[in-house]
Formats: sequence, C-alpha cells, structure tokens
Amino acid sequence: MKIALAQQNYHIGNFEKNTEKIIGAIGEAKRLGADLVVFSELCICGYPPRDFVEFEDFIAECYLAIERVAAHADGIGVIVGSPMRNDAPRGKSLFNAAWLLYEKKVRGVSHKTCLPTYDVFDEYRYFEPGYQWSTIEFKGKKIALTICEDIWNLGDNPLYRSCPMDELIKQSPDLMINISASPFDYDHDEDRVEVIRRNVLKYKLPMFYCNAVGSQTEIVFDGGSLVFDSAGNVTRGLKYFEEDFAIVELEAAFAKKSIAKDAADALVPLDKEMRVAKVNDPERIIEYLTAEGNIRQIHKALIVGIKDYFAKMGFSQAILGSSGGIDSAVTLVLACEALGKENVHAILMPSPYSTSHSVEDAETLSKNLGNPYEIIPIKNIYESFLSTLKPVFKDSPFGIAEENIQSRARGNLLMAIANKFGYILLNTSNKSELATGYGTLYGDMAGGLSVVGDLYKMQVYALARYLNLHRRVIPQNILTKAPSAELRPEQKDSDSLPSYEILDKVLYQYIEKRQGPKEIVSMGIDPVLVKRILRLVNANEYKRNQFCPIIRVSCKAFGVGRRVPIVGKYLT
Amino acid sequence: MKIALAQQNYHIGNFEKNTEKIIGAIGEAKRLGADLVVFSELCICGYPPRDFVEFEDFIAECYLAIERVAAHADGIGVIVGSPMRNDAPRGKSLFNAAWLLYEKKVRGVSHKTCLPTYDVFDEYRYFEPGYQWSTIEFKGKKIALTICEDIWNLGDNPLYRSCPMDELIKQSPDLMINISASPFDYDHDEDRVEVIRRNVLKYKLPMFYCNAVGSQTEIVFDGGSLVFDSAGNVTRGLKYFEEDFAIVELEAAFAKKSIAKDAADALVPLDKEMRVAKVNDPERIIEYLTAEGNIRQIHKALIVGIKDYFAKMGFSQAILGSSGGIDSAVTLVLACEALGKENVHAILMPSPYSTSHSVEDAETLSKNLGNPYEIIPIKNIYESFLSTLKPVFKDSPFGIAEENIQSRARGNLLMAIANKFGYILLNTSNKSELATGYGTLYGDMAGGLSVVGDLYKMQVYALARYLNLHRRVIPQNILTKAPSAELRPEQKDSDSLPSYEILDKVLYQYIEKRQGPKEIVSMGIDPVLVKRILRLVNANEYKRNQFCPIIRVSCKAFGVGRRVPIVGKYLT
Repeated sequence: MKIALAQQNYHIGNFEKNTEKIIGAIGEAKRLGADLVVFSELCICGYPPRDFVEFEDFIAECYLAIERVAAHADGIGVIVGSPMRNDAPRGKSLFNAAWLLYEKKVRGVSHKTCLPTYDVFDEYRYFEPGYQWSTIEFKGKKIALTICEDIWNLGDNPLYRSCPMDELIKQSPDLMINISASPFDYDHDEDRVEVIRRNVLKYKLPMFYCNAVGSQTEIVFDGGSLVFDSAGNVTRGLKYFEEDFAIVELEAAFAKKSIAKDAADALVPLDKEMRVAKVNDPERIIEYLTAEGNIRQIHKALIVGIKDYFAKMGFSQAILGSSGGIDSAVTLVLACEALGKENVHAILMPSPYSTSHSVEDAETLSKNLGNPYEIIPIKNIYESFLSTLKPVFKDSPFGIAEENIQSRARGNLLMAIANKFGYILLNTSNKSELATGYGTLYGDMAGGLSVVGDLYKMQVYALARYLNLHRRVIPQNILTKAPSAELRPEQKDSDSLPSYEILDKVLYQYIEKRQGPKEIVSMGIDPVLVKRILRLVNANEYKRNQFCPIIRVSCKAFGVGRRVPIVGKYLT
Repeated sequence: MKIALAQQNYHIGNFEKNTEKIIGAIGEAKRLGADLVVFSELCICGYPPRDFVEFEDFIAECYLAIERVAAHADGIGVIVGSPMRNDAPRGKSLFNAAWLLYEKKVRGVSHKTCLPTYDVFDEYRYFEPGYQWSTIEFKGKKIALTICEDIWNLGDNPLYRSCPMDELIKQSPDLMINISASPFDYDHDEDRVEVIRRNVLKYKLPMFYCNAVGSQTEIVFDGGSLVFDSAGNVTRGLKYFEEDFAIVELEAAFAKKSIAKDAADALVPLDKEMRVAKVNDPERIIEYLTAEGNIRQIHKALIVGIKDYFAKMGFSQAILGSSGGIDSAVTLVLACEALGKENVHAILMPSPYSTSHSVEDAETLSKNLGNPYEIIPIKNIYESFLSTLKPVFKDSPFGIAEENIQSRARGNLLMAIANKFGYILLNTSNKSELATGYGTLYGDMAGGLSVVGDLYKMQVYALARYLNLHRRVIPQNILTKAPSAELRPEQKDSDSLPSYEILDKVLYQYIEKRQGPKEIVSMGIDPVLVKRILRLVNANEYKRNQFCPIIRVSCKAFGVGRRVPIVGKYLT
C-alpha cells in the first residue's frame, strides 16, 4: 500500500482555496499511484478557526467542502481534518475530527480526544473530547487514526486522563496515522520527533505523521511531516517551513528487525514540563536563547510569518520606522527578504534628540538593502504639539509626556503613509521592551504585525549577527552602539533598564518558565531588581493588551497565548 | 443553623486585601451568631485569575491566604473558593475548589466539575474537572457544595456530560450551597434565578447561593446572591452591583408545604441557547436592545465597570475627547457619575471640518455637568502633518489618510495630557462602529477602557435618553443631530454606513446570535447589504484586536470573549 503525505498551507475560512489545494494533491497522489493520501488537522477550514466554528453557517461550509473533496476520493482514500457535528444529546456540539473518504463516501471518522487548551490553544472551547475509539479499516489494513495532541499523551502526560492510542491498540491496528497542526517554536521540533518515536516504540507500529505548514496570524506551523518505521527510525522526512509532498510504501515501514526491547524500556517518562522552556541553568540561559541553531530556525519562522500575513491579508507592501537601532534594522532586513526589497518602505524620522549617526546608520542600511526610504524629520510636528499644548502643560518640566509625543508623531506619520498608499505598518518592538513597558502606546507600539516581538533583545542582536554572516547588510555601528530611544538628550536604555544580559535572563525565567520571585532571586540576582522587573512586566499588561499580533517563535509569546488580568495586583 | 452570605468585591492577586475583607466578614458573621459564612468562587485570589494560576508562586500565595483565613474559622464554618493542587498523577495540576474551613482546619473540599470554557471563560485551560463527588458534613447537616457552573447542568445542558448535583443527591444532602462568580449581562440574571429555581425544584432542597460582585477589567459581576427555600421561593435576595451581607436561618428555608408536583413536572428543558441572546423576532430586536429595563441595568454595570477599573488600577482621574456627539456625551456623563465630575477632564478638539455646533454642544454638556474642560483646536497640528507629508503625499487627493491624521492628532493630544497629569483616557467608541471598523486605530480607538463599546448605537441613544430622564444633562441637539465623524466637509455616518436601525439589527444577529448570511437575509434585509456588513465586521478584526478592554454588558462583547482569526477569509 502506498501512502502519500500532503503537507500544505491553508487559509482559515477560505474554503474555495483550501479545497482546491486538497483536490490538487489528491490528483497528484493518484498520478503517483497512491492508495491513500493524508492531509493535516482541520485542513478543510484551516487551523485554528477559533470562534468561526460557533457559526452554524461556517460548519455547513465545512460539510460542503468535505462533499467536494469526497467527489475526488475515487480509487484513492483521502484523510482530511474538519469539524464534525456531535449528534449525541450530551457534550459540546462539535468534534475535531479526522475523516477517511473513499469511493466518494465517508468511510470512517476519528474524534480528537486530547484537546489542547493552554497557551495559544482553545480547543475545549469548541470541541467535545472523543470518548469512543475504533480503528478504521482500509484495503485490509486497520488504521489507528489520531489527531495531533492525541499522541502527546503516552499515559504520562498529566494534562489528560485519556490515552486514545492505549484504547486503539486493543483493536490490533496495523499502522498509525496522525494528522496535526503542531506549531513551531524554537524548542519544539525535537520534542515532537521524540513524542512520535515514543509512540512507535510503545505501540510497535509504523507512524505516518502529517503536519500543517505556514503561518496563521501569529502562529507558525513548520511542517516537518514524517514517517517512522516500526523500529523507531525516521524513514522519510518532509521539508520544514515549506509545502511538501511525499509518497511512501507502507510495507517498507514495517521494520524487519524487531525493536530492541532495551530501547523501549530505556525510555524515562517525558518531563512534565516538556511544553515549558527547557533550560534550567541560569548561567546558560543567554547562551541558549542566542544559540545559532535556534536563531537559524527563528529566522525561517519569521520569514514565513511575514510572508503569510501579507499574502493572507491581501497586501504586498510594508512600511516601517527605521531608527538606526538594532530592532528596526533586523525587522527591515527580514521584511525585505520576505516581501522583496522594493516592497518595503523605510521611513527615517529624526527628532530634535536624534543623534546624527542614527539617520546615517539607517540610511546606510537601506542603501545596503536597496529598499526605498524617506527621511521625514518630526521637528515641526513635535513643536506644533508643544505649542498647542502650552496652555495646558504651562511650564511643567520636560518628561514622559514630551517623549511620547515624539513617538506618537512618528506612529501617526507611518500610519498616514500606510493609509495613503495601502501599506501595512510593521512593528519593530522586541520582547524585552514589550515585557517591561519600555515603549509608547500608539507610538513605537503601533503596527499591524510585530516581527521581532517574541525575541528578547539579546536574541535580536544574535539574529542581526546571523543575518550579517553571509552578507554584511547591517552596519557595524548599529550592532555596537548602546541602545537608545533618543527621545531626550543623551538618553540610553540603560538609564531606565538593567543590562539586557540580566534583564533577559530574569524575563525568560518569569515568562517562559513561570518562575516566581523566590526562584529567580535564588539564581543570584538582586532581589530589589527582580521585584522591579516583575512589577514592570505585570503593570504593563494594559499596554500589551493593545498590541498587534506577534509572530510566535518561543514557547510563550505575548499575545493570544498569554492571558493575564489587567487589573490584577499580583507582584505589582 | 444560621448561614451568612458575604457578597464581596475582590481584586485579582491582591491577597492581602482579599483576605482582610474575608476575615472582616467572618468577624461580622461571628458577631451575628452565624454557624457558617459563605463567600464566592475563587474569592481568595479573585476571579478570573487567568494565567496567574500557572505560577506556582501564585498558588503558594493562595495556600498561605487559606491558612490566614482558616485561623479565623474558630467557632464558625467558613466556605471560600481557591485553587487546589491536584495530587493525582493524571489530569491538570489544579482544581477550582470550594473549601470548608472549620476549627482552624480544612474540613472538606469540593472540586468544580462543569468548567465554563466559552465566551470570556477559560477554566479548562487551568483546571481539571472534578470527577469524584461527596457531600460535606457540618454540624450534623450534609452539604451539597458546588461551584457556579456546576448547577447550570441539570442534565440537559449539552455543554457537559457530567451533572454533579445528580451525583451529590445520591448521598441525601440536607441543603445546597453554591459559590459563584457569575458575570452580568443584561440578559443573564433572569436565567440565573431560573436555573437556581430549577435545581431547587429538581432536588427539593434549599439553596444558598453566593455570587461575587464588582468589575474585573472588562467583566462585571453583579452580585444578586440569594436564598431559595426548598419549595422554590426566594426567601432572601442580596443587592445587585454592591457588596452585601445577609444571615439566614437554615430551618426557615425548609418549606413547610411540599413542592407542587405540577410545578416540577411543568418544567420544560431549558433552551439550548440559554447563553445566547434570546430575541428571535427580527422586528423586536431594536425594541429589545433599547428596553428600559435592560438600559437601567446596563447603566449600573457601566458605573461599576468604570469605578472598579480606576480603583483597581490605582487611578482617580479620567480624560476623554468630547466631540459634541452622542457617544462621548454618554461616556462623559457616566464617567462623572462614577468618578466625580471634578475628576473627569473633557477635551474639545475641533478640526477644520468640525461644525460650530459641535463645540457648543460639548461645551454646554460640560457646563451642565460641571466638569473641567478645555478647548484645543487641532488645526495647527493637522497642518504641520500635511506640510511634513507633502513631499510624500504630493498632490494626491484628500482621503482616508487625511481623515485619520486628524483623529490620530486628537489621540496623541489626549494621551499627552493623560501622560502629563496621570489620567486614564476613556475611549468613547460604540459597538456598531467597532463592529464595522468605522474608527481610527490610535485615533478615536485610543484609550485605556472602553465605556460604551458593548452598546450598539441605538443603545447609546437609549442610554442617553435614560440619563436625561431625571435631569436633562445631555443637550437636545446631541440627541437629535445626524451622527458624523466630522473629518471632511459635510460628512455624515450615513455616507458610509446604513441606518443604525438596520445596521444594529444585522450586527446583533451576527454577533450575539451567531447567525449566518442566509438567516439574516431571511429577515428581509437586502442580501448585498448583509454581505457588505458581515464583510466589514470580519475584515476589521485586526483593528479590534488592538482595542482596549470593553466593559461587557451583553452576552457577546468584543474582546476576550470573542476570538476570531485575523487572517481569516470567512465572509470577507
């Protein structure tokens, strides 16, 4: 039996395009003589569909699309993911289902049992967990068909009390198929492969694993679909961050040698914290955050994130404020790579407090990249604000208000140009400043998409160095000068914030690892400083609440996957 | 046995203040000779604590607070809500628990079984559903102790497959106690009382129901705790929208006459759509939305929402843009009522396209209210933007970009004053414009809290008329003139939008009732118009995604309770 895996990039709610894509791959699979072709989780509607599934009209569209796809399931079996109505009187009205279509009919379905409801996932909001399990017969083989998270409970995942594969194995299946929409983070792929391998070793069956690829607003799916033989070897791996297609002989996936009993026995239970960032040694945090292997993956994810956001929103051109600092430099380089240099408009907006090198550095950067740029000084606008506000501000001293006016004048200019010419404003804030509230709402926090908002400042530097490896596009001065918002004379980030080496370490412990003040202090960091940093993080929730989507590359990004009360008083 | 109900307003994560408040009420209950005092769901940490519960440090604080409270549970039983660790190897690491403290010890606990995970609720994200049920004995009585949603499944709620009271009743309890954090919407209280009554009729036991009160960012809890006797009569009701305390004799709650069998039998299953807005008749939608009973409740909820946001954020003064339009007028009146007129700063910012009556109307309003106001024309700022942008815009015609510059200049001015003097900017957008994207990001969409963002335009008018009932504060001209953004000459809302009568009807069907295009068209509305409106709603998700918290008064507000993909393509 030949099984094809179709790793594709879907658009949520775009039924026409999704079915067209699926039908295209069915045709390809037929031409190559496949018996069965497998797609990813909820491929019919795109993942995650969120509250769209609460619309009966949306579900009806899913069913119509299933019919259209089923019409092509002649002479070939097709496994797709799509919501399924729950006709039982009890339980939520939908299942997250895998459908086997064959001979133009629905031949079998599986309901997802383990519904991820943490971080960016909300599946229990919509779906009833599966509670009945049976293998599906196809051409004389019994398939144990599961969906994504279903294989993440090997009996030792404390998040779930059910283990669907433990149920299915009782029916002596011949192979396992898992359809997934498993998102990228720079820590995740290793876990994913290990979890699949453990299933193979535990159940002694080959596994055909088909993952989604492409970005949906903030969530990047990285593909990497694969086939394991029954001895726990990867016999076929699909590309990462790209659509791909593969066809594999089932028979070849039955390993001739039996599984070394030792290998299966040697497995220790997976860390409870598998889904939490892994590094515990405080001395190694920065090394880990900036490791080249991680940065290389992050780079690919950000490119997909930018590309897909624009393509799926129907835009092609970007604008951003280019300050001569490291964050906007990295964002600009990435945007040029993702969208084409001619489609990225850099706006240099010096204020009375900008240093001369800022404009020079930003100009050199755009000359290196070859993208269009404009210099628009904000002095006149800034002064018109000050004179307009004079009757209200009177003779109060220069302060945060005046700093923010400059930042918001820039935001206004960028949005005006974006509105005039139909560009999307890319935001250039990094995770360290978002965490501490070191940014101006409606000013430098403006934008439709945040590119480096899930990278700590030290990671932005590491990414800059990585981008410069092959071709020195980012001027050295941007990499070496002290970071500054340049909103008052001689300002430096270090006036208000601790060094990024320390700050990022504390933030990582608090945000990614959910450590409390006691644990962080025990890393040897000044208790007063820890208290101050955690207070900043929690007190600035109101700002992040109004921030744009951030391309997610870590296991805990700000945004939809991190939900913290705004009026909370914890650690503030 | 005397049972006290303490209906209190907590602050999320403010363990010191919450325990102090709880201990205060225990003292009061002791003085009044109560045997038992009951508090609301998760009162120890405040509801909803959201991702704070993922911090072991936060849970440790909850346990410490339970200990502090337990020290006062001498000679009196105390029922509080707080997270509880799940020591079983399987299942999420926490339960949402009700704790009975007595003789300074934990005497019993109940785990919440039905975990709301829809709309603003995310409980399954954090908690393992209870799966073992037992009554708790106290002074010779057996208590069936449940938490909020637990009593919302009477066996016919399709959201849940477990019914905890069906389990508890097997152990022959003497009374039911339910601790809740059940939020307000203008449709909800009736359902709540009916659900409690049905429990009483089904299980033939008295019910002591203690709800939370006060606002947590966007969610308003309205209190209304009550006691039902075993015949299904309310024997004691606590206040709405205020803290309250009551003490009730248990014996008096055992009705002498038996329950009319007819009454119990006559109950038809609750509508599946109980949690969805109720009006189906399209002709009655506007009447329903603007019904005085609903508007009266909304008024109270908005006052609590403003008050608590400021108090819990530690601010006392507000600022807002007062345009002479109905939305800012209503917001201003409410803010003055909630915060005191001297604490609300109205800023009138005429643009070159403002009509003279706008400033006059806004001025009259502030004179009527007696709150401070300033007039700050934006002409100079607007012109400095245009001249600065001249080299980029060249001779392109006036358009959306120029309109938005004016709106964002206002946003910048308001934020500058807010930053200078420590005010919070109140946003004045209504639900109809948020739905259709008829607003400017970082301009009129700026602000820390949206006051009328969950009211359709027709409801804003109804609320204005209601506010004017006793004292005519809002000038008649504001109520009667045609709505306009005044960002270009002779502009009217009706240039870009259908009449609010029709718009609000369509929006209500789509947002509150999750109807699809076919159903809405079948109400007799032009299919082209329906398509256009739904497209506007879905295409503007990216704007609302950056909007501030909205005080929630309907069953489906924009914000945390409505999660729609930004790059989605559904109905756009």
